[in-house]
Amino acid sequence: MRKYDPVLLKDSLSSTALWVEQELDQLFMYQRSISRLPSFAGYSLGSGGKRIRPFLVRAACCAVGGDPDRALHAACAVEMIHTYSLIHDDLPAMDNDDLRRGKPTLHMTCGEDQALLAGDLLLVEAFGVLLRTPLRPGRVARMVRHLASAAGPGYLVGGQYMDMYHPVEADMDWIRLMIKGKTAALIRVSLELGALAGGAGDELISEVSREGDRLGYLFQLTDDILDIRGSTSEMGKKVSKDSDLGKCNPVTKLGLDTAIKEGEELSSDIAEVFSGLSGNWENISTLALYLPDRRK
Amino acid sequence: MRKYDPVLLKDSLSSTALWVEQELDQLFMYQRSISRLPSFAGYSLGSGGKRIRPFLVRAACCAVGGDPDRALHAACAVEMIHTYSLIHDDLPAMDNDDLRRGKPTLHMTCGEDQALLAGDLLLVEAFGVLLRTPLRPGRVARMVRHLASAAGPGYLVGGQYMDMYHPVEADMDWIRLMIKGKTAALIRVSLELGALAGGAGDELISEVSREGDRLGYLFQLTDDILDIRGSTSEMGKKVSKDSDLGKCNPVTKLGLDTAIKEGEELSSDIAEVFSGLSGNWENISTLALYLPDRRK
Repeated sequence: MRKYDPVLLKDSLSSTALWVEQELDQLFMYQRSISRLPSFAGYSLGSGGKRIRPFLVRAACCAVGGDPDRALHAACAVEMIHTYSLIHDDLPAMDNDDLRRGKPTLHMTCGEDQALLAGDLLLVEAFGVLLRTPLRPGRVARMVRHLASAAGPGYLVGGQYMDMYHPVEADMDWIRLMIKGKTAALIRVSLELGALAGGAGDELISEVSREGDRLGYLFQLTDDILDIRGSTSEMGKKVSKDSDLGKCNPVTKLGLDTAIKEGEELSSDIAEVFSGLSGNWENISTLALYLPDRRK
Repeated sequence: MRKYDPVLLKDSLSSTALWVEQELDQLFMYQRSISRLPSFAGYSLGSGGKRIRPFLVRAACCAVGGDPDRALHAACAVEMIHTYSLIHDDLPAMDNDDLRRGKPTLHMTCGEDQALLAGDLLLVEAFGVLLRTPLRPGRVARMVRHLASAAGPGYLVGGQYMDMYHPVEADMDWIRLMIKGKTAALIRVSLELGALAGGAGDELISEVSREGDRLGYLFQLTDDILDIRGSTSEMGKKVSKDSDLGKCNPVTKLGLDTAIKEGEELSSDIAEVFSGLSGNWENISTLALYLPDRRK
């Protein structure tokens, strides 16, 4: 079993969080200056979270030798897409959740209408901010294309739909396809956008893409494991939800022990592959090693 | 009073509708092939409407001497943004409408959850399709930037918020600002995208932009007049809604006769300005002249 330094990872996550949150604050100060909207989108965006996706964007950009500041807008964009999807997902018409990141969900604080609009706003603004990436137009357009694909019907929206309309007898192929859309697409595109911002070539982008998908699956797998093991206070959201709702996920399907074993093996394997890619991918390998150990 | 030929305009609107609907059908066949989503977004997108925004995109592209096929993706994109905004606006948490274009609103046919996702899907895909515009990346990125701005907090989302949270004593400045976001931004950006696709220069784009704003105001003004004069069967949606809800609009504020007079004057004036712009803007001038006469 490979070792990793949890303190270094924690520092790297914290400094990325600071980096992206400063820019998000700027964006929302600007947003308030051009509209009469209250800062409801800022409430969700500002309510913490580990900023894993911005971390992936930044780390991938640095891994290929790029200047991380070129990836800053992409880091904001993926966090905004992630936050929009949480806000809409938590709405009563969808998952009807009242707790998120240890705080009341947005519609609990400002009503469903404003939460709906806040999600719409974040979705549009994600594209708006990504377009401000200081790179040549061809590269920026390509980044926007990657984001639109990941957020669209083939991935994020499609995965959310599959999650809502589970067949009772969903098999592991079905579950993997759902996770590929619902969770992995944003993890994957974070790495792709970072690598694109850093100037990576097509072959490397394809490799990163493939591993990003597997990292996304690992992320969801460890989330589903925590959903069984964790407590509401540790997780900052409802736990054991899937099994309460009769939904399938890798843990309900494979059993806890097998799922834990799959997670550990996948984690080492992903870390190994990233270490072998062109560039310095240590930060991403470390994250892959950490995922099975995370407690929230 | 200038004359216009209503038959020519009708033909032009019909052939634009055919042009854009064929492409939208293709898009949704593709969407179904890459995801497990049902075609719920296609229900709203396929349920008619006058396709005024695609008409504006195409006419503006032709006006500046461009090949209309270069504006096809932009025409689809604005119609998709328009349709997304109607779907989310009709939801129970927002306007709670059950009739749209003479058919049950989307959430009445497939539930709120699917209607919410359908709106999200259309919003993302609007960017996806616009990115496929066959022009050089710098121009495409600029078009995407225009669309993101028009759909964002400064305009569409901001205007929808203002419409939901009317101050009781809203004055005409407030109402004009709301219309600028809620309605005019998409009318304006349709013209901008068409002119950009057709290769127009910055100065012409600015002129088109300014007039597009006024055309958008005229469009909303004549809509509000019809809301008082029309019947539900003619309009295919609820009428007299604003006054029933105690909301302000130019008609409730200025009175019907003054509003009609303002509409007629603005219509002639806009038609005149477009006729004077570089290129051949007759189709847009004709539309401006037609608006005060429309019956649905």
